[in-house]
Amino acid sequence: MEKIQVDNALIRQFKTWFNENELKLVSDQLNQMYPQDIAMVIDRLSKEEARLLMNSLQKETVIKVLVEMDEPAREIFLSAFTPFEIANEFIDNMNSDDAVYVLNHFSTKIKEDVIGQLEDIEYASKLLSLTHYDENTAGSLMAVELIKAYINWTVAQCIEEIRVQGENVESIYVVYVTDPLERLVGLITLKNLILAKPDARLADVYNKEVISVSTSTRVEDLANITKKYDLVVLPVIDALGRLVGRITVDDVVDVIKEEADEDYQLMSGITEDVDGTDKVIILARARLPWLLIGLMGGIASSRFIEMYEDQILIHPEMAFFMPLIAAMGGNVGVQSSAIVVQGLANDTLGTRNIAQKILKEIRVALINGIICSVVILLYNLAFNNSTQLAITVSIALITVIIFASVFGTFIPLFLNRMNIDPAIATGPFITTTNDLLGIAIYFTLGRFLYNTF
Amino acid sequence: MEKIQVDNALIRQFKTWFNENELKLVSDQLNQMYPQDIAMVIDRLSKEEARLLMNSLQKETVIKVLVEMDEPAREIFLSAFTPFEIANEFIDNMNSDDAVYVLNHFSTKIKEDVIGQLEDIEYASKLLSLTHYDENTAGSLMAVELIKAYINWTVAQCIEEIRVQGENVESIYVVYVTDPLERLVGLITLKNLILAKPDARLADVYNKEVISVSTSTRVEDLANITKKYDLVVLPVIDALGRLVGRITVDDVVDVIKEEADEDYQLMSGITEDVDGTDKVIILARARLPWLLIGLMGGIASSRFIEMYEDQILIHPEMAFFMPLIAAMGGNVGVQSSAIVVQGLANDTLGTRNIAQKILKEIRVALINGIICSVVILLYNLAFNNSTQLAITVSIALITVIIFASVFGTFIPLFLNRMNIDPAIATGPFITTTNDLLGIAIYFTLGRFLYNTF
Repeated sequence: MEKIQVDNALIRQFKTWFNENELKLVSDQLNQMYPQDIAMVIDRLSKEEARLLMNSLQKETVIKVLVEMDEPAREIFLSAFTPFEIANEFIDNMNSDDAVYVLNHFSTKIKEDVIGQLEDIEYASKLLSLTHYDENTAGSLMAVELIKAYINWTVAQCIEEIRVQGENVESIYVVYVTDPLERLVGLITLKNLILAKPDARLADVYNKEVISVSTSTRVEDLANITKKYDLVVLPVIDALGRLVGRITVDDVVDVIKEEADEDYQLMSGITEDVDGTDKVIILARARLPWLLIGLMGGIASSRFIEMYEDQILIHPEMAFFMPLIAAMGGNVGVQSSAIVVQGLANDTLGTRNIAQKILKEIRVALINGIICSVVILLYNLAFNNSTQLAITVSIALITVIIFASVFGTFIPLFLNRMNIDPAIATGPFITTTNDLLGIAIYFTLGRFLYNTF
Repeated sequence: MEKIQVDNALIRQFKTWFNENELKLVSDQLNQMYPQDIAMVIDRLSKEEARLLMNSLQKETVIKVLVEMDEPAREIFLSAFTPFEIANEFIDNMNSDDAVYVLNHFSTKIKEDVIGQLEDIEYASKLLSLTHYDENTAGSLMAVELIKAYINWTVAQCIEEIRVQGENVESIYVVYVTDPLERLVGLITLKNLILAKPDARLADVYNKEVISVSTSTRVEDLANITKKYDLVVLPVIDALGRLVGRITVDDVVDVIKEEADEDYQLMSGITEDVDGTDKVIILARARLPWLLIGLMGGIASSRFIEMYEDQILIHPEMAFFMPLIAAMGGNVGVQSSAIVVQGLANDTLGTRNIAQKILKEIRVALINGIICSVVILLYNLAFNNSTQLAITVSIALITVIIFASVFGTFIPLFLNRMNIDPAIATGPFITTTNDLLGIAIYFTLGRFLYNTF
């Protein structure tokens, strides 16, 4: 099997084969492809072509492709089946983590219908309890399939268990060791199992150093733990310390990427998880809320400036620097909030309190504020603008920079303490607030300074 | 061993122990901690405390902590040793990927000195060739330690090889199968090795489906491959198809996180990799370049507005909406560029050409532009602003939104084609460009429309 580039040429090839009803050629090609690549092809076919393609697959490949394909295509494909068929032909053949992932995309009604139709009652019961975990916790990500050995077993018994259970567990890296009450006490890697004597007791060869999470551990925390300790699989225990599941690194990688993408999109003023291939209307809807916030900010700015209309008529040069002041406030605010949001996400903020962090930000702001103010002062003096204007712009600029960094630091910290995702404070929100703040400071100071000098 | 929370209390505890010279207590505590946590403690101690701590560790723990600690602390610690000691006491005991990671933080001179002092000439030669790979390629991330078996071996021979080589290879998940010319032909998982009969021939039980990368594969591409195919380890082959190394998922996770953080910071106008715990001067320096770009943009805006001074004096209300127009241009530009940058990074842009993508962005911009323009038109009419102003603002707004999305889409695509990181196009760069663009469009249109209506 080769990795195949899913490109326009391949998609056109498939479409031609479907047109000419060359289903043998389709199926030969699919047999050489990984499920992930097949899923990418499906996402670019018509409904009817996708159905024909799925029908050309071997049953075990169908299961794998179903898990990999995008939600709309999966929904369309499954809508041709009854809950009984979905349960016993598809869900029953999936690992529990994949099954829960697919089930959680259904409405509660359909989800419970499907689980209720499973002929394997024990599996149904497991899936039902798995679907009850909050989707931001370890419980919702874990698979219950794992290899477990009791501490009083021998190595040979443990290997026999792998032989018996191994078929149900896709990738085995370690065997978890529990006490008779099912409480996790350690692990043994397959490597050490191979190297140990068959009659050795597990108690003598197992590793007590095992890092685990609880079913209620937050997904971000388990991602940080996996990353920090370089794990490939993480056991999950319940409140009584009993081993109930495991989370594999591939799911953690997906979490890390999704969280990063989400923060990035919030920062850029996009509210939903979209990508460039989504429909125009979905892309537009994901962006509109932030644009409306920007619009409200702009209207508020306009009302504020209106109050200073007389000043603009006397000193129209004040208006020249409005965009500069507003933009600088926005830029500084975004920088400060980004550092805080990233620090919270990566758990690298250190442990000092909010006041100390804000003081530190003020020191950073002072350095950059002084440099920027001096640059603009020299510019204004060099280009023969009035001294009043030069002084007003420079003092306003440094004031705006300091206020913007305090706000940019404080708002995400405050949101985090209120248990609201601090990432919503970045991007358009902070830019808009600081635009407005900048204009207010500029004109208030301007009136005062023009009257003073 | 327990996961220990590295918090202020623990750091204070260590500092007290060092003050009172209670090195036994320090070493007892350290024995219960993971290297990753010890490294976090070191990053918050003084130079002298860090030295004392490192001296309290067992030698094999020192090696692990050295790889985990931050660069400044590592440099300070190693500066007390000669190149010969660094080579044979530390580097010689590291896995090749860790050794290369540490060596690549030295200057070329010290790096070559240290490698030259290694008593293990064979390892020195391996490390030397590893340090020559470009740091953005698979070659620089791979470890040469791996378990390899020839296809004509039996399962028992393969297990014997694990026994012999296993000590050098930290985590073993699979054994790679090669032909007599060392070319990678497949793999066998440890699970299947355990389940196979000892006298079975590898040729009969190995798995031909193996996804590999070449030494020159770009780091982003191998991250995408690992994520897509849910791999925990990825073999690396040279141009002749020979197996030369392997990359483990923990290193790939680090790459994914670093790339995401870097894009996030560029988007927020921060040029260097910094976090909230860095020194004030470093934080200030990382942000200043973008602020200066914003300042230049602001100055350019002011020159532009100055040309329209007469218009502001006749119609001061034009000035009220300047910040709104500039901010909306900036917001839309960031949204468009973020979608493109993320699509390029995740390889989800699809395969349509630049012109088609820009056309799609224009359609998104038209929808949101029309909505925003209507909102602001209704506002202006409702609040008794002149019809001229109302029409000017609305027409300028939709024009700015369309231009901003075209620029936001085009610039990162263009940079990418020029092999420049498209992420630098996001954030302050696009905001500044679009601020300026917005002001220009607004006043040019304004003069025209005021004269027309």
